Amino acid sequence: MPNTTAEHIIDLDTILEEVRAALERHDARHAAEIIEDLRPADQAEIFSDLDEEEQRLLLSELSPEDSADIFEELDDEHALELAREIPDEELIPIMDEMEPDEAADLLGDMRPERARKLLEELEDPEEIRPLLLHPDETAGGLMTSEFLALRRRMTAAEAIEAIRQWQPEAETIYYLFVVDRYGRLVGVVNLRQLIVAPPDALIQDIMDEDVIFVTADVDQEEVARLMARYDLLALPVVDENKILLGVITFDDLVDVLEEEATEDLQRYGGAEPLERPYLDTSPAVITKKRIGWLLILFLTATLTGSVMKLFEDEIQAMVALTLFVPLLIGTGGNAGSQTTATIIRELATGNVEPRDALAVWWHEARVAILLGLGMAIPAFIRAITWVDNPMLATTVAVSIVVLVLWATGVGSLLPLVAAKFGIDPALVSGPLMSTMVDATGLFIYFSIAKILLGL
Amino acid sequence: MPNTTAEHIIDLDTILEEVRAALERHDARHAAEIIEDLRPADQAEIFSDLDEEEQRLLLSELSPEDSADIFEELDDEHALELAREIPDEELIPIMDEMEPDEAADLLGDMRPERARKLLEELEDPEEIRPLLLHPDETAGGLMTSEFLALRRRMTAAEAIEAIRQWQPEAETIYYLFVVDRYGRLVGVVNLRQLIVAPPDALIQDIMDEDVIFVTADVDQEEVARLMARYDLLALPVVDENKILLGVITFDDLVDVLEEEATEDLQRYGGAEPLERPYLDTSPAVITKKRIGWLLILFLTATLTGSVMKLFEDEIQAMVALTLFVPLLIGTGGNAGSQTTATIIRELATGNVEPRDALAVWWHEARVAILLGLGMAIPAFIRAITWVDNPMLATTVAVSIVVLVLWATGVGSLLPLVAAKFGIDPALVSGPLMSTMVDATGLFIYFSIAKILLGL
Repeated sequence: MPNTTAEHIIDLDTILEEVRAALERHDARHAAEIIEDLRPADQAEIFSDLDEEEQRLLLSELSPEDSADIFEELDDEHALELAREIPDEELIPIMDEMEPDEAADLLGDMRPERARKLLEELEDPEEIRPLLLHPDETAGGLMTSEFLALRRRMTAAEAIEAIRQWQPEAETIYYLFVVDRYGRLVGVVNLRQLIVAPPDALIQDIMDEDVIFVTADVDQEEVARLMARYDLLALPVVDENKILLGVITFDDLVDVLEEEATEDLQRYGGAEPLERPYLDTSPAVITKKRIGWLLILFLTATLTGSVMKLFEDEIQAMVALTLFVPLLIGTGGNAGSQTTATIIRELATGNVEPRDALAVWWHEARVAILLGLGMAIPAFIRAITWVDNPMLATTVAVSIVVLVLWATGVGSLLPLVAAKFGIDPALVSGPLMSTMVDATGLFIYFSIAKILLGL
Repeated sequence: MPNTTAEHIIDLDTILEEVRAALERHDARHAAEIIEDLRPADQAEIFSDLDEEEQRLLLSELSPEDSADIFEELDDEHALELAREIPDEELIPIMDEMEPDEAADLLGDMRPERARKLLEELEDPEEIRPLLLHPDETAGGLMTSEFLALRRRMTAAEAIEAIRQWQPEAETIYYLFVVDRYGRLVGVVNLRQLIVAPPDALIQDIMDEDVIFVTADVDQEEVARLMARYDLLALPVVDENKILLGVITFDDLVDVLEEEATEDLQRYGGAEPLERPYLDTSPAVITKKRIGWLLILFLTATLTGSVMKLFEDEIQAMVALTLFVPLLIGTGGNAGSQTTATIIRELATGNVEPRDALAVWWHEARVAILLGLGMAIPAFIRAITWVDNPMLATTVAVSIVVLVLWATGVGSLLPLVAAKFGIDPALVSGPLMSTMVDATGLFIYFSIAKILLGL
């Protein structure tokens, strides 16, 4: 195995070419053999890089187990498209091999009639049916129903025997949840505890009764926060009567963390998050995700024009004032953007809370004074070399201090206010912040100019 | 246990008050008892909220085990400050209880003389010493030396017995790595495989020889990517001779993913990432992290002034042109920012690679045409209502189409070019992108005005 991804990527490129070459000479068996030797994530990557015809050819040779692995690793939209191409009689054995939560996700994305028909023909529809009830981005949507529950009166030896007997090679095996006769969650024991315990020890004596759990409707972001905070390999999901419904495993946690980071950055960039990989999303859909914010920001930005109209006489009197407009509002936007990005992440990781608003503002005010003074000197020099007018240069320098102070204030308080009102702070994007600072910043600049230059 | 974080936070607030009240009436024993009942992450949160004197009082009552848990959960700077306050004879038993990688991190942050002195007095300095050799943000800095290695000729029963005998209650127990007589990594077996195997099966017959590993110098981002991609609970770290040095566990993965997401967002906001929580970072340090980029961007932004000077005659002839400057460059910056954020995350998750540049550009061009046309109409209407001049309104509308096309092009290619040259694409911040689009956007606008308005 390679020890860095760089080497790893080169490997995959070569393998992709081999697979393609084999398919081209209609040796699908050889292509399938190459694929079968890979890990699921790599199988899926190579598979995604093939065109539709190549994929069909390859699938016909792969075992249902390997096809199931690939389906699980593909992103949702991609899996759905592929499933559309495959007749029911081929798809059913593959879905039988998929993890119940992944199979449920796929069914949930299909046309309801086909999903219903497929579900009836699956080996174990009862394992999947309850998973279909929950929205994708909730605990219920993440959980798998494939878990082994222990009973309090079992001994450690019996529990280990149950694990031996149990078929699925699932990650859910490291934490074993204990239920009472009604199926209610009463404790957790990890595999290590089972092994270390005397064989005749009762589960109820070694289990930990203080289990962290969630109900099925809890948002996935919340799930990720709990699992990350308490370093949990698995999180049990219960219904309102505390009956154990399923288990969320750490691989889901990693997926959610990456998904949320992607969403946050896209939101911060000023666009609604895409639901699937960028290059697989049509320009029309991308446009739809972006144009709303772009229009809102455009309309907000027209305020800058109104401010400039308000100061039309001053501008006519000294057109040189406009020279510094892009420079000043740019600096305000940049200073605010630095602040907003910091506060959004601090809120996301829980280091800062809305009630810290005053402390944050005071912190930012001190930073802004330092930044503003640091920027005022180069601004003065730049201004005086452009337009030989010391008072204008002073106006620019003073404006930059006030602007930075204003922009960091707005930039820090906006996400805090959003969080306070239960709005996702990541919605306070860099562009939103800049746009709000633009018009107000102009107003500040022209007002200072009016006073200092006596216009 | 609460099932949502909302309830959870309320709980912690009440507990914090109870702890404070107990400390106030000098009942440190009661305060310690409250703390001892909590999970480590909650212990650390409450502990962080106490002031220095309260912390000292509480520590004197806590067992070294609980104190060690708290030290492990505190962020690095906080732990270092606390360690400074504690005399050696109290700190040593606490450090003896800490995980070796956490203890090494703490020692690495201390003054070298104190670190050397403490290391000698620890129970097991040999476990920690090799960990001190590696920088924090590498695989070597993340790994723990506390792992159990199996030998090929052991039976499954012997391996399970070894696990029973082994003291540490570490997460490293779920994957067991197999070494040869020289300590070289030869395979991996998971705890489930051990349990399911017949007791007399040899490890070499059940182990998986195809182990993913890294060398100690591999960057933590790379480590996280490998573990996330292959859903690994643990990743072995080896030296250049493939001798097993340590193991990175999934709780480190989660920390790295969160840290990298924070760094990416801060970079994208246009600031160097902070090394510790925002409110614990002094304004001077925050200023230092921000002013560099702010100055670079300011200097780049002065180009906008140069462009405006270049078109001074045109502006004098029609001052109304300047009305639309903030609006147009704002829209260009916003459109570019949406694109850049998307591409940065696609690069980070591996969905897009530098060689996809052409595909990305073509994708963005189509999006930009749609966006541009969608924006042109409101821009025209807005312009004609401000200044009753159809040609000026047409200039604004045409400019917005060209600007959006230009901004999305720059916004998509900048991070791709950075990645191509091995620069972290997250360094292409929103502000950097906006600033680069500002001056060029102005040039485009005034050029179009010159042609259409015949200035």
